[in-house]
Amino acid sequence: MLSKKQIQYFKSLHRKKYRDIEKIILLEGSRLINQVIIKNINILNVWITEKFSQTIANKYLLEKLSDKKINIHKCSEESLVQISDSLHPQGIIATVSYPIYERVNQIPQKSVYLDNISDPGNMGTLLRTCAWFGIESVFLSSNCVDPFNSKVIRSAMGAHFYFKNLIKIEYEKLFKKYKKNNIVVLCGDLQGIPIKDLPNLQSQGWVLVLGSEAHGITNTLEDYIDYRISIQNFSSMESLNVSIAGGILLHNLT
Amino acid sequence: MLSKKQIQYFKSLHRKKYRDIEKIILLEGSRLINQVIIKNINILNVWITEKFSQTIANKYLLEKLSDKKINIHKCSEESLVQISDSLHPQGIIATVSYPIYERVNQIPQKSVYLDNISDPGNMGTLLRTCAWFGIESVFLSSNCVDPFNSKVIRSAMGAHFYFKNLIKIEYEKLFKKYKKNNIVVLCGDLQGIPIKDLPNLQSQGWVLVLGSEAHGITNTLEDYIDYRISIQNFSSMESLNVSIAGGILLHNLT
Repeated sequence: MLSKKQIQYFKSLHRKKYRDIEKIILLEGSRLINQVIIKNINILNVWITEKFSQTIANKYLLEKLSDKKINIHKCSEESLVQISDSLHPQGIIATVSYPIYERVNQIPQKSVYLDNISDPGNMGTLLRTCAWFGIESVFLSSNCVDPFNSKVIRSAMGAHFYFKNLIKIEYEKLFKKYKKNNIVVLCGDLQGIPIKDLPNLQSQGWVLVLGSEAHGITNTLEDYIDYRISIQNFSSMESLNVSIAGGILLHNLT
Repeated sequence: MLSKKQIQYFKSLHRKKYRDIEKIILLEGSRLINQVIIKNINILNVWITEKFSQTIANKYLLEKLSDKKINIHKCSEESLVQISDSLHPQGIIATVSYPIYERVNQIPQKSVYLDNISDPGNMGTLLRTCAWFGIESVFLSSNCVDPFNSKVIRSAMGAHFYFKNLIKIEYEKLFKKYKKNNIVVLCGDLQGIPIKDLPNLQSQGWVLVLGSEAHGITNTLEDYIDYRISIQNFSSMESLNVSIAGGILLHNLT
């Protein structure tokens, strides 16, 4: 069972201030925890409800956890609801340490720069998509949502453990380095050239900049852009969701 | 100002039962309302807070609403918070009637079938993406979330008004019609053929089936599928978000 103190501790992890001190992530739900096992990440502790342990569909996941000698504790539905950030907790929660990212010594050949992405769902989905397409370096502007926010973690589905770099970074320094290393700076833009008209970048490095749907990209960043690329619109819809646009552009680039 | 009765009425629209009787949609936020104006949809009423009316960035939208002779009422921040489904209401809310969709007399040449999409954010983003790519017919399995759910409306960004058909439908009847009309049935599937290996369907009609990330597509639907198509994975990530996968597949198909 979870003590009052433990519940307090877990709840505190939903706040950046405490999370950054503890450097612990709460993982909620079977699929996310399963993905983290696949990636061979060291899970610290797992809490499950009685109902979860008795559901046949969860047997395989629980066996995998046992095989890895991970501590599985029982807890009540009520305490899980208190800890959980989700409206309908699935009955399983786990803790892992923050992944350790490298310092940016070498400019990556393929990377993504997220500018002012404030919605945690979009941020998480973008991270998940970057990981899927093998992007190992994702840089964030300082006004992006915290990548360790609980909602980001939930929608990123374990992507956090696939990156070499995932950091907030001062963009001017970064983009000067891109330029120095002949990295082509691409930017998703409604008024850009169609993605199919982009020259072949097979032998060249690139970075894809994605900005906020509502505000576009930061003005002072615009000087660094080599190509603005867009996705053909077949309607009078004003824009695509930024994570959808990111997915389509990354699919075309990789 | 909003009366208690009005507040009660607006709150009731967040519940399917009442919404389906009234056939009224609540639209929240400037971008969504702007998109609906672009599409020339008849907005019934608009409520704004004092703060919203005094913010310079909103002037253009308010002018557009006035030009269209739409009734703009003032309301307090407190009453808007009560009505709103959003955590941070933007200070503007509007009402429109449900769009009227056609009956499915003719089988469309391009359409999307959503199977068991229960997450409102995913459903909304998928609808927005379908509208962007000019898909006019979206059919839903009975276990999909209600497409008029407030969260779906918010993330669909006005897509609801771009469709000829957006209906829950008995799939057996529908797919028999697809087959009879030589419509190629495609399905997004992690184990499918790469999308680039799909034969050219330029001269043929198609329907794209997208299923739940967690449960895949309904077993009994599988018999109708002509091609399972997948998106290349560059990692050990188990899956892509369904709306990202849908976006990439639709971009390749259109």
